[in-house]
Amino acid sequence: MERTRTTEVGQHVGERARVAGWLQSLRRMGGINFLVIRDGWGMVQAVTEADAELGPLQGGEMGVESVIAVEGMVLREAQAPGGFELHELRVEAITPVTEPPPVAINKRKLTASAGTLLDHAATTNRHPARRAVLRLAAGVMAGFRQALVERGFTEIQTPKLVASATESGANVFKLDYFGRPAFLAQSPQFYKQIMVGVFERVFEVGPVFRAEPHDTTRHLNELVSLDAEFGFIENHFTVMALLRDVIAGILAALNEAYQAELALLKVELPVVPATIPHIFFPEAQELILRRHGVDVRGEPDLSPQDERWLGEWARQEFGSDFLYVTGYPMGKRPFYTHADPDHPGYSNSFDLIFRGTELVTGGQRLHRYADYIAALEKAHLPIEPFAEYLEAFRYGMPPEGGFAIGMERLLMQLTGAQNIKLVTLFPRDLNRLTP
Amino acid sequence: MERTRTTEVGQHVGERARVAGWLQSLRRMGGINFLVIRDGWGMVQAVTEADAELGPLQGGEMGVESVIAVEGMVLREAQAPGGFELHELRVEAITPVTEPPPVAINKRKLTASAGTLLDHAATTNRHPARRAVLRLAAGVMAGFRQALVERGFTEIQTPKLVASATESGANVFKLDYFGRPAFLAQSPQFYKQIMVGVFERVFEVGPVFRAEPHDTTRHLNELVSLDAEFGFIENHFTVMALLRDVIAGILAALNEAYQAELALLKVELPVVPATIPHIFFPEAQELILRRHGVDVRGEPDLSPQDERWLGEWARQEFGSDFLYVTGYPMGKRPFYTHADPDHPGYSNSFDLIFRGTELVTGGQRLHRYADYIAALEKAHLPIEPFAEYLEAFRYGMPPEGGFAIGMERLLMQLTGAQNIKLVTLFPRDLNRLTP
Repeated sequence: MERTRTTEVGQHVGERARVAGWLQSLRRMGGINFLVIRDGWGMVQAVTEADAELGPLQGGEMGVESVIAVEGMVLREAQAPGGFELHELRVEAITPVTEPPPVAINKRKLTASAGTLLDHAATTNRHPARRAVLRLAAGVMAGFRQALVERGFTEIQTPKLVASATESGANVFKLDYFGRPAFLAQSPQFYKQIMVGVFERVFEVGPVFRAEPHDTTRHLNELVSLDAEFGFIENHFTVMALLRDVIAGILAALNEAYQAELALLKVELPVVPATIPHIFFPEAQELILRRHGVDVRGEPDLSPQDERWLGEWARQEFGSDFLYVTGYPMGKRPFYTHADPDHPGYSNSFDLIFRGTELVTGGQRLHRYADYIAALEKAHLPIEPFAEYLEAFRYGMPPEGGFAIGMERLLMQLTGAQNIKLVTLFPRDLNRLTP
Repeated sequence: MERTRTTEVGQHVGERARVAGWLQSLRRMGGINFLVIRDGWGMVQAVTEADAELGPLQGGEMGVESVIAVEGMVLREAQAPGGFELHELRVEAITPVTEPPPVAINKRKLTASAGTLLDHAATTNRHPARRAVLRLAAGVMAGFRQALVERGFTEIQTPKLVASATESGANVFKLDYFGRPAFLAQSPQFYKQIMVGVFERVFEVGPVFRAEPHDTTRHLNELVSLDAEFGFIENHFTVMALLRDVIAGILAALNEAYQAELALLKVELPVVPATIPHIFFPEAQELILRRHGVDVRGEPDLSPQDERWLGEWARQEFGSDFLYVTGYPMGKRPFYTHADPDHPGYSNSFDLIFRGTELVTGGQRLHRYADYIAALEKAHLPIEPFAEYLEAFRYGMPPEGGFAIGMERLLMQLTGAQNIKLVTLFPRDLNRLTP
């Protein structure tokens, strides 16, 4: 008999169906046996009063996480999880498991410490709640790509082994490349900019590496970056309009295909306004002084507290979970950032604040060769290591810009997770390089 | 006036339209001026007899690759590339370029050496033929993903920084990870297998790293791997059936959305038979003896010549560009390969031969914990470095298998390129770490 997914047994009410998966639980209560089978998509319950129907499970040697197939009659049963149940069972062992897993993964909540959960990610990633979070990552990537492909963007894959550190010499992993030093890319920034000269509109989904020596609940040393870059923009507002549509596209993808995961996690997705409100950096600082009596004017960046206050303000003033802060001071932005022609010292860059926390950074980049030479000089950076990057600007580049979304950061904020490592398949941090 | 893509000017015949892009060429011939403008999608010609209409291009200071906008009346013109032409021009400079690019990229063919082309990838990637090849990569990735998503697969992104070499200690890049040794993943093999325990069906598109110290036209030290892995298989034939559908899906995606690129490159895509023919490894060796009088029986692997002969045979016998060779000897396959229960010494693995060259490797893996312990022992490998990988098998894994497609290898074979580096955006080899 062909196998049916647990999420599709409801299509076979009154017929026999065969499911296969992992033994999530077996409860034997006063003559009635309840089995829960988990497969790659969901779970279904099977019930029998006849011990003999348990087949290989009867003796109790096979424990949870054993791989089994269960054939049975499908009944509608409002009490059962999912609303259906299997009866008149035939159970078959596929891969017996005799030891209990290192962490109980068949309780509603995983109760072990974050460290234990991550040490045993090979099994704890199977827990339905944890699996749901991890599955949302697929929806985020799919939504990101679809929004961009629809807008004429071409997907690229750029090298992660690079000859010089992208933006600064600090916080990069260094390795030996056939006798020469090489680095792991901190971002695809230079490559995606070069590729604007080829395809005009490009995006990439791939790993980036940050050798930052801190171990917090908000940092990863390897993460998935969702990058976009495009030409023929007016200024950073063109980039902000695209990012708005991309975020809306990601949320639409999750809404469309991940309802089960969102329900399990009790996540309510935000609504993206047709236009995300924005505030100019120095005006944001003025606003904080007015509303909270704290004078942060002259500070080169916003603090987490500033971002929370601005998030509250956007919520109250515009009913929006999202807010753009534009025009961060040039001093705190990378050398390739385009200055604001009307406000000396400020840049054509932005941060997207989501519910009071920075989610995305982006902006307009320099696009004229002479401006790059001047910017590198001003930053006291040598030109030579950037020569091949600069070639793209030397031979014609339109005004361009882009942004990068940290995938795990986005998942963390969407799901309200307290620790970024718990929304990551196999996180890498200061102390963790396995599994 | 809103900008029109060069590939869409035909929708505005009899109206004025505005295109923007790079000055591909400007020919001034006996009183008539021909401009070709290239944007991210294609090219369009603009023609004028009035020098004044050339605006900023009139004096000759602005050269090819200058970024310009051109507004003009759209006429149907069979002689023009693409079938349409702009007349009565208004030309606007966006980013002037005054020096010629290091390699002429406005000739039909790029004539520089591969080394020069790659040194100047920032500009040579703009050449229409080279760009077309690079754009096909996006189609390959999209087709791969779509075929798998349709079949219930979940996309994953696994870590590239790992604590121990995946399959062997040789040919891995090593780095310092906060005082500990770390390696760059040669493949996502172990992680995708672990994730079969979570999602059952997974795929990944991402970089893999091979520290092989050779510099050939067929090797890269960093490449994009298209990986799939899934559970509840019968044996390697289940994997081969999926791979057939995935290859067909990739070709369908290229056929659907990349006709312009395929036409420019004069690529004729192969047809995938409903069932790809297959031959058992020792029988392939017998066949070679019978047909070519060369006795390769007992050899543990097929040589490139053997593969060419088998490719010819598949073409003649089945009219197929594709052939599976199954059952490679266990000795030449990695320790996690599943043995063929009916043919001692042979494995449940396969290679897919495309037009006489190996394209994909895959097979059934071990799935029982005890089998892994025995296999590691037999391979004289310690268990401890694999402990976290083995946890996935210790706590229940169905029979499973998968495959990995080298994206650049596939592109090379589909386009008939002579050098894999020329189908790669920014290749990495023994001598090349830039751009």
